[in-house]
Amino acid sequence: MTDGAPRVERNGDIVCITMTRGARRNGLSREHVGQLLAAFTDAGAGDAAGIVLAAEGPVFSAGHDFRDVVDRPLPEVRSLLALCTQLMQTIESVPQVVVARVQGHAVAAGCQLVASCDLAVAAESAGFAAPGGKGGWFCHTPMVPIARNVGRKRAMELALTGDMIDARTALDWGLVNRVVPDDELDGAVTELMRRATRGSRTSKALGKQTMYAQLDRPERDAYAIAVEVMAAASQLPSASEWGASFLEKRRPVWTD
Amino acid sequence: MTDGAPRVERNGDIVCITMTRGARRNGLSREHVGQLLAAFTDAGAGDAAGIVLAAEGPVFSAGHDFRDVVDRPLPEVRSLLALCTQLMQTIESVPQVVVARVQGHAVAAGCQLVASCDLAVAAESAGFAAPGGKGGWFCHTPMVPIARNVGRKRAMELALTGDMIDARTALDWGLVNRVVPDDELDGAVTELMRRATRGSRTSKALGKQTMYAQLDRPERDAYAIAVEVMAAASQLPSASEWGASFLEKRRPVWTD
Amino acid sequence: MTDGAPRVERNGDIVCITMTRGARRNGLSREHVGQLLAAFTDAGAGDAAGIVLAAEGPVFSAGHDFRDVVDRPLPEVRSLLALCTQLMQTIESVPQVVVARVQGHAVAAGCQLVASCDLAVAAESAGFAAPGGKGGWFCHTPMVPIARNVGRKRAMELALTGDMIDARTALDWGLVNRVVPDDELDGAVTELMRRATRGSRTSKALGKQTMYAQLDRPERDAYAIAVEVMAAASQLPSASEWGASFLEKRRPVWTD
Repeated sequence: MTDGAPRVERNGDIVCITMTRGARRNGLSREHVGQLLAAFTDAGAGDAAGIVLAAEGPVFSAGHDFRDVVDRPLPEVRSLLALCTQLMQTIESVPQVVVARVQGHAVAAGCQLVASCDLAVAAESAGFAAPGGKGGWFCHTPMVPIARNVGRKRAMELALTGDMIDARTALDWGLVNRVVPDDELDGAVTELMRRATRGSRTSKALGKQTMYAQLDRPERDAYAIAVEVMAAASQLPSASEWGASFLEKRRPVWTD
Repeated sequence: MTDGAPRVERNGDIVCITMTRGARRNGLSREHVGQLLAAFTDAGAGDAAGIVLAAEGPVFSAGHDFRDVVDRPLPEVRSLLALCTQLMQTIESVPQVVVARVQGHAVAAGCQLVASCDLAVAAESAGFAAPGGKGGWFCHTPMVPIARNVGRKRAMELALTGDMIDARTALDWGLVNRVVPDDELDGAVTELMRRATRGSRTSKALGKQTMYAQLDRPERDAYAIAVEVMAAASQLPSASEWGASFLEKRRPVWTD
Repeated sequence: MTDGAPRVERNGDIVCITMTRGARRNGLSREHVGQLLAAFTDAGAGDAAGIVLAAEGPVFSAGHDFRDVVDRPLPEVRSLLALCTQLMQTIESVPQVVVARVQGHAVAAGCQLVASCDLAVAAESAGFAAPGGKGGWFCHTPMVPIARNVGRKRAMELALTGDMIDARTALDWGLVNRVVPDDELDGAVTELMRRATRGSRTSKALGKQTMYAQLDRPERDAYAIAVEVMAAASQLPSASEWGASFLEKRRPVWTD
């Protein structure tokens, strides 16, 4: 493991990827983004049912490291942003359910990480911000998934003011799924993950990936995708087993 | 009337289509989907101002019938899903205002029905779920309109956990417009329908249909549609009458 | 100044455009739309940091003037709607942060104005409606930005019933960012504008404009836009200054 690389732990069916650069506020340096991308790619290729994205230290993630972007040539910054986008899109495309465990402030690309996870649980002390708008470099890419989690006026408020919202506001706006007292965070993540990983993995993976394919398209296009995938998915062993177990009034046994 | 066909009643300007297979939890078998499609197509071609979609029994609708989809060949499942999608799109395209009256659990394609209606009123005891994600066949098509009613993180929670949300949560998330005590359900549906069917029918039908055409397109494309339709609609008798009644300080009399 | 033209005042970095046709409920006659468009175009070309859209009188704006649309030929109505759409799109495209100050009812195209501003602050006595649906001419174009601020079922309720929602409901649905007692409206607008105009103007202008370009596109397309703009924006003096000030632990000095 490279110094400061994310810690990857397997606990039963769940992989936990933990950012360990707490002393540097889990800044998303190029090296760190690359390590997270590798960790998600590896976990995505494995047989886990879910992935938790967690962080050590008082800050979930402060976003990009200024040293990586200040006075760097455009192609270098562009490649960093492309790499970071690849990380966000990988989180959305891995077959596992991804839950963010947010214990502190999630800022800029750190907030983007939370927005990109399928689900998110926040401690009451967590906070969320896209501060580029009150500085000198607007949070263009973070606002892509953040705006798709909250409404338009709220996205504009986050982006233009750069101010932090607290965990309760993030829950109200739909950026996170649960807010719990800080000392109940692990239990709440485990419980939500347990609920979100029940059932056939093959079926759920296809479901998650198809959701992102259809979400922000015109409804007619979305149906065109969903009908074909759902028809094909009816031929999976999981679909047969689900139906059989229902008709036979027994618990299903998933093999896929 | 075929056994178990929806009951279609006319009460003044309103048609009520009631699913009567309560003993079978109003499961959306191929036959039932076909009957609902026929009922909406007929009502859509008639002169009613609004359509209520209701259900008998303790369950609004449990979604597809396992017997229609378990171990069936792909083309057969695909044609059922295509037929079901046609039902949902017909609900959106009929010129009438469609209000769902939800008295119990609305599950999978049953929840999709609620999401596809223009408006929805739920009894406090109602519940909403897309359980495919915790089973063996993901709710791909139901999530198309459900995700367009609630936010992204909430859509993911419904789809991945498969858990049921109660009526108050559905109201908070924007899946329904009203929640009332169970014994006030009919009154609330009648009142919302009354409010939603005031005015010129031709004008409102064009309005509803244009809403679905523009809703999830880029704003510039949406304006391109809306400007042309609204300009054309200014030539309708209803527009003249509205303006004339306003300038003459009298109540409008709608002839279209 | 033409009689009834909007009053344009500069106060420090902020331009306030105030509709002064309070006695005519700030109706959006062709002349008035043209004047507002000119005022926003002028302010947009200037060096202000923010623009407040305000109104005199008990009504924020009652929308189009019936005299402009009743029994007028289609091309004339169409050109009015195209002009009005140009006003809305100009509000979205000017480089300044635009905040609506809503002191009364905002109706039809008046509600569209609020929906089109980046941010909105409402007095408790404000109200919002798209009444075309209960009359003879549906609010097609107003619903384009209104539907992009609130959820789908809520957009349908506003459009189909034509009923007014109060300021608290508008806040809950995401149509406005703040609701305050009437006598605190000016203070709340000033405070939100102050927060929303901090930082580099060039950077923020690019940010605002890119937000509208990416908001309702498929996420992959949105990222394609955001990555290129954000990479280019890293070369602005503001980005260098932000990074330098951070690394040197001093306050940034914005020159762009």
